[in-house]
Amino acid sequence: MAPKTFKSVAEQDRYYKSLAPTFPYLNEPTASRDRDVLLVRAEQPFNAEPRLPQLVEHMVTPVTRFFKRNHGPIPTLDPANYTLTIQVVDGPTTVWRLDQLQMQFDTHEVMAAVQCAGNRRDGLNRVNKVKGVIWGPGTISNAVWSGVKLRDVLVASGVPADPAHSTYQQWHVDFKAYGLSAEDECYGSSVFASKALNPHEDVLLAFKMNGQVLPRDHGYPCRVIVPGVIGARSVKWLRTVTVQPHESLSFYQRRDYKVLPPQANATNLALYWDTISALQAMNVQSVICEPTEDSPRPLDNQPYTIKGYAISGGGCRIDRVDVSLDNGKTWLVARLFRPVSSSAARRNPELNDLPTTKHWAWTLWACQVESGIPKNAVLVCRAWDANGNTQPSEPTWNYRGVMNNSWFKVDIAKCPAALLTKAHM
Amino acid sequence: MAPKTFKSVAEQDRYYKSLAPTFPYLNEPTASRDRDVLLVRAEQPFNAEPRLPQLVEHMVTPVTRFFKRNHGPIPTLDPANYTLTIQVVDGPTTVWRLDQLQMQFDTHEVMAAVQCAGNRRDGLNRVNKVKGVIWGPGTISNAVWSGVKLRDVLVASGVPADPAHSTYQQWHVDFKAYGLSAEDECYGSSVFASKALNPHEDVLLAFKMNGQVLPRDHGYPCRVIVPGVIGARSVKWLRTVTVQPHESLSFYQRRDYKVLPPQANATNLALYWDTISALQAMNVQSVICEPTEDSPRPLDNQPYTIKGYAISGGGCRIDRVDVSLDNGKTWLVARLFRPVSSSAARRNPELNDLPTTKHWAWTLWACQVESGIPKNAVLVCRAWDANGNTQPSEPTWNYRGVMNNSWFKVDIAKCPAALLTKAHM
Repeated sequence: MAPKTFKSVAEQDRYYKSLAPTFPYLNEPTASRDRDVLLVRAEQPFNAEPRLPQLVEHMVTPVTRFFKRNHGPIPTLDPANYTLTIQVVDGPTTVWRLDQLQMQFDTHEVMAAVQCAGNRRDGLNRVNKVKGVIWGPGTISNAVWSGVKLRDVLVASGVPADPAHSTYQQWHVDFKAYGLSAEDECYGSSVFASKALNPHEDVLLAFKMNGQVLPRDHGYPCRVIVPGVIGARSVKWLRTVTVQPHESLSFYQRRDYKVLPPQANATNLALYWDTISALQAMNVQSVICEPTEDSPRPLDNQPYTIKGYAISGGGCRIDRVDVSLDNGKTWLVARLFRPVSSSAARRNPELNDLPTTKHWAWTLWACQVESGIPKNAVLVCRAWDANGNTQPSEPTWNYRGVMNNSWFKVDIAKCPAALLTKAHM
Repeated sequence: MAPKTFKSVAEQDRYYKSLAPTFPYLNEPTASRDRDVLLVRAEQPFNAEPRLPQLVEHMVTPVTRFFKRNHGPIPTLDPANYTLTIQVVDGPTTVWRLDQLQMQFDTHEVMAAVQCAGNRRDGLNRVNKVKGVIWGPGTISNAVWSGVKLRDVLVASGVPADPAHSTYQQWHVDFKAYGLSAEDECYGSSVFASKALNPHEDVLLAFKMNGQVLPRDHGYPCRVIVPGVIGARSVKWLRTVTVQPHESLSFYQRRDYKVLPPQANATNLALYWDTISALQAMNVQSVICEPTEDSPRPLDNQPYTIKGYAISGGGCRIDRVDVSLDNGKTWLVARLFRPVSSSAARRNPELNDLPTTKHWAWTLWACQVESGIPKNAVLVCRAWDANGNTQPSEPTWNYRGVMNNSWFKVDIAKCPAALLTKAHM
């Protein structure tokens, strides 16, 4: 199986443009978009991320601060008429109403960070121009999702429950969304069946975040949450789920969200698409959120606490975050703040001291510098995960500007002068 | 649960030494150890690795070239009297004879690389002295293992077959070996139950490698193979398997095989043990095997093929290997040689074109340089895995010298003059 092929990128662009009408952005949930909190990167489709200091004020990101990533207008779905169709190739098709999904399966709650693969795209765009929304380091947020396990619904829809069945080995679970999308007939993606069907991978059909009904911007009334994996796979406004022997044919699986090699560019990228994996789990990442180069410069003779976030993919634990004041010559070790992230541990607090297999949430960190931050400091952070992976010191450019996890730096000399200094003037 | 605690490292050392008698190394399989092929790093226990050019001559490493890592004398086990005891905490205990294990369960074959967490320890020892056998970059090998699935035997021994059972979420599967070990009562380790009990994680009780009965050095008559995970968890000469609610208490799980932070040293390391995860999956790794700094310098006007290996952890695919001739300033992209590594794909060759979820084998790579290798070249390689992880440019020291995956370099100026040049003299 292969997606539609084209003789040139120009032909492909023409094809996808022919699918994509001029979208009506007439019913956007504008009232729920707080422009004091969000930095808007694009208006149509709406794409926005929170400022970094506000992002790490809470372990669980308030809904209003959660980044928003869209590929088209926000669909308007009526929950009374909402249906989710589940198809199994060479098997049954089942149409579920929302109340059936909510009432016929056990509820599960999972704390999980969602991160866009394009987080920190701005860093690669500074190396060389990239294609895509130029995101800063704020397209990550952490929420408590509640809903039902996708596995449970798939088994009730005719997927074999036995994990030794061959479906679990090589098959894929394909998601398609309601609504229009800029680059394909609709938004779509797939994950490995071994992920979607494993009850301990905590893949949810989510109806709520942080206890609230999902806002329209986040997939109302029903979205997928695939913990540990790039946000692109957690499809919003879920319309169909297909259990099939091949990856999604969507543009967003086969053409986008891949780390193309550096020689791939707008004229030759078709040569590389099929040789590179569609991204699933995230790489190891960390970012300094306080101070930023936009916020007042820390006083150089006052204790200061550097703060940030860290995450790795596939539920892998963050074991350590190092912080440097001298551009990576010497390092301090940050204090880590880890929530209990697995749903089992959340239900059984006495399990907290056991090594948890899955760390879906982010880890926040803080590094207290008693002597103050020197005026000429270049701050750097780097995280280490439980597999021994760490971040590379330098960014390596790729055409789509995804998965930038190079050392995050804050050049203190670039910060505006501190407020206190101004008051003294 | 916690392992035995000590007031000081010296007290711990005394305790473990009291357990470890002066071992009799009287029945070592010396005849099977080819010292023309292996670089011996320690005699008692026997620890040896192959030379790099020979290591990558074959996709499947010949048994004689497979690295050997031991923590004590090689046990002498009689297959007719061999038993494997399987215990489930708060459940049954079952004793299996070898012929029962071999005859009562389906046979599975898995191609998987095994890599010691101490591979490339020499690189960290050059930064600062580390504790451990000073390994080069050859403590990795790739074999076809055959045996039975550990899951099948555990289910037959009373572990619930239902993957939604709580055992799968937080429990651990503990392995103990026959024979004596230098640092504890016996060699031991554990893996997550979610790994051991998932049929698609391909955890085996192996009886053969590359079609041959396991040699004594590699665990005869029965060992565990945990694909995608550091070699320390693939316990040889398996004596007991315990399904339990906590990690192994073994020295090799709780005290060794951890990436301690750089400030941890011989006098304070006890402060850090319990804060750092026991290593499971490997980080992303690649090594140049040809040329080496010990082999004749490539002629600078002749085409030359640089060769090596790459691997990542948890079955994550290697998507790209970059090679530099100028110490990382510019990069070429290597050609990759990937075997079909999952057991399902091996049984069904028509599945080859599908994305395979699990890449247990290593990826070999080659990079042809038509213009020849310049005399002053510094070769570098770095791999990228399907999660977007890559290797750091510089090594970061840790006390036990594990998980060194910094850029691998070959300084051509250090190679002895080429043979042809000598002949011309």
